[in-house]
Amino acid sequence: MNFNSGPATLPLAALERARAEFLDFAGTGMSVIEHSHRGKEYEIVHDQALALVRDLLAVPSDYDVVFLQGGASMQFALVPMNFLPPGASADYVVTGTWSEKAHAEGAAWATVAGSKVRLAATAKPEGYIRALPPAQTSLDEAAAYVHFTSNETIDGVQYLDLPRFGRAPQVCDMSSDILSRNVDVSQYALIYAGAQKNMGPSGVTLVVARRDFLDRGRKDLPKILQYRAHAEARSLLNTPSTFGIYLVRNVLEWLRDQGGLAGIEERNRAKAAELYAMMDDHAGFFRCPVEIGSRSRMNVVFRLPSEDLDRKFLDMAKKNDFVGLRGHRSVGGIRASLYNAVDPQWVSALVSFMGEFARRNG
Amino acid sequence: MNFNSGPATLPLAALERARAEFLDFAGTGMSVIEHSHRGKEYEIVHDQALALVRDLLAVPSDYDVVFLQGGASMQFALVPMNFLPPGASADYVVTGTWSEKAHAEGAAWATVAGSKVRLAATAKPEGYIRALPPAQTSLDEAAAYVHFTSNETIDGVQYLDLPRFGRAPQVCDMSSDILSRNVDVSQYALIYAGAQKNMGPSGVTLVVARRDFLDRGRKDLPKILQYRAHAEARSLLNTPSTFGIYLVRNVLEWLRDQGGLAGIEERNRAKAAELYAMMDDHAGFFRCPVEIGSRSRMNVVFRLPSEDLDRKFLDMAKKNDFVGLRGHRSVGGIRASLYNAVDPQWVSALVSFMGEFARRNG
Repeated sequence: MNFNSGPATLPLAALERARAEFLDFAGTGMSVIEHSHRGKEYEIVHDQALALVRDLLAVPSDYDVVFLQGGASMQFALVPMNFLPPGASADYVVTGTWSEKAHAEGAAWATVAGSKVRLAATAKPEGYIRALPPAQTSLDEAAAYVHFTSNETIDGVQYLDLPRFGRAPQVCDMSSDILSRNVDVSQYALIYAGAQKNMGPSGVTLVVARRDFLDRGRKDLPKILQYRAHAEARSLLNTPSTFGIYLVRNVLEWLRDQGGLAGIEERNRAKAAELYAMMDDHAGFFRCPVEIGSRSRMNVVFRLPSEDLDRKFLDMAKKNDFVGLRGHRSVGGIRASLYNAVDPQWVSALVSFMGEFARRNG
Repeated sequence: MNFNSGPATLPLAALERARAEFLDFAGTGMSVIEHSHRGKEYEIVHDQALALVRDLLAVPSDYDVVFLQGGASMQFALVPMNFLPPGASADYVVTGTWSEKAHAEGAAWATVAGSKVRLAATAKPEGYIRALPPAQTSLDEAAAYVHFTSNETIDGVQYLDLPRFGRAPQVCDMSSDILSRNVDVSQYALIYAGAQKNMGPSGVTLVVARRDFLDRGRKDLPKILQYRAHAEARSLLNTPSTFGIYLVRNVLEWLRDQGGLAGIEERNRAKAAELYAMMDDHAGFFRCPVEIGSRSRMNVVFRLPSEDLDRKFLDMAKKNDFVGLRGHRSVGGIRASLYNAVDPQWVSALVSFMGEFARRNG
């Protein structure tokens, strides 16, 4: 039972399909890995993956869907490189470890380029325990964009209702909750997400962006750094991670078969509700540091009454076949990631195990 | 029989191993794709892949080996970003389509950064038919680096003896001949290569660089763009393409079992020699545009007496189970890529087919 925070568990159906045709893809006698990214066999897969993203997220027709490499961390640099020319300013809302990093990388680029990033709000002083609402931010309405992170993987803090920060173009890192719930894409100028939580393997990054926003990006950068160039080339500007996109396609077909985002959102809500309810029932034993209104449905973080008990819990959990429950090394504690492919039965098993552990050690 | 130019054929042993343990890696009951990049099971693979590169290429101890994402095209931008600060100048030697692109991307960055790239030499006017020797270049001994491409995948032009361009640090794009022959790494400040020809799947990029050169790189860029930061983090600065690196590991183990670079170089020489000899025997029918001293052992390009015959050849080849022989869309004609994993028997079969085709159509 794999509760890894990413790379994470993937739907068995998607993996089994990959295994079955691993050495003989589409009757070609070759692995999909060995096919040219310009060949028709791969292009069908590539186009299917792009179309599935478009369908599942109900992406408006004036938006582009792009697959890139480099992870969300590369987008921390590419976003300001493209949209923060000399003299411009961007706002960052910091609600956890990842948005803090995005802000730092943006600030580094701003120094190089002669542009500016503003900290519109930060929850750091209070310890990343809640998602900051727009009313608690100081926004620059002339900003080139406002950047925020919908779900903080390490801190377990999520915007349960997606916010709108003023009138500037909204740029959102959705790495750890993309495709886990319905999203109104039309509210965003650009969304990005690493694939390795809800979508597929590491090494694939999804970008969904309004075409007129991409067109506004700098045109003097090397081509490979320009979002617009990747969009115009249908994510084939250079050789993409072909096997990665193939696996994403398999995962997205599974997601479609689960009833799409409406279906998976309901399942994800139920999983998180079951786990948080158990913690609330044992509130003296399991302590979630995150405020109730910001508790992530994707990454449930908690602590036991002592670090000794944290360690004992992790040891016992491992012996009982629960994988990936250790909190991020920067914050410690326990974390259960409940991404799309995490089976509700695993969550029920975890809840039983936790209840039993509390009874014996409480 | 797969003669793709990349993504390309991979050793069957490497793929079969991946298939056998696809759903149950190292007895964990999980796919390697689902393992954390910080977990011990994956880290073993990661370290093995790095160590195999080091062993196979005899990388000196004062060099770092790094796995990145983004392909060689991303390095076209990252190299000048790291090593071409305002006021500095770099030399580019252009011997084909890819070094031309590297130069263009470097020039774009130089304009943004207030630095400079020089065209030390270009073979474009004569049509990319040979690798330019150092004597035919105009070098700036004060250059931050000299960039060249050891093998031009599209044009079939290779430096059969690797050159040394003056005293400036040598930066070489070895995407399409990395690990196909012995290389004296100590001659280079930085080598980079996409994996999808001789090393593994697309989505993994190898960088081998002298540590003191990396240390000279700009420190004010966003971290994710700094080679040094990736080297210091042992290629785990952010989530790498874990399955891609796993497959690279499998391919490198196969390569080691072939007698390493000495063994594979001999095999690659023999494959290319057989194909070029046949073309020379039918010199009126098969025409290789590349000068004899620069004929690539990796990408053999040729044309038939007419475009009609080119087409007929490609049609017949396809019917006879030869895959990937169409020349790059920018140059047309025929191209057979003979990377490490291309079986010598496939080359013999191709040679027979070509001889028969020449007899019937010559």
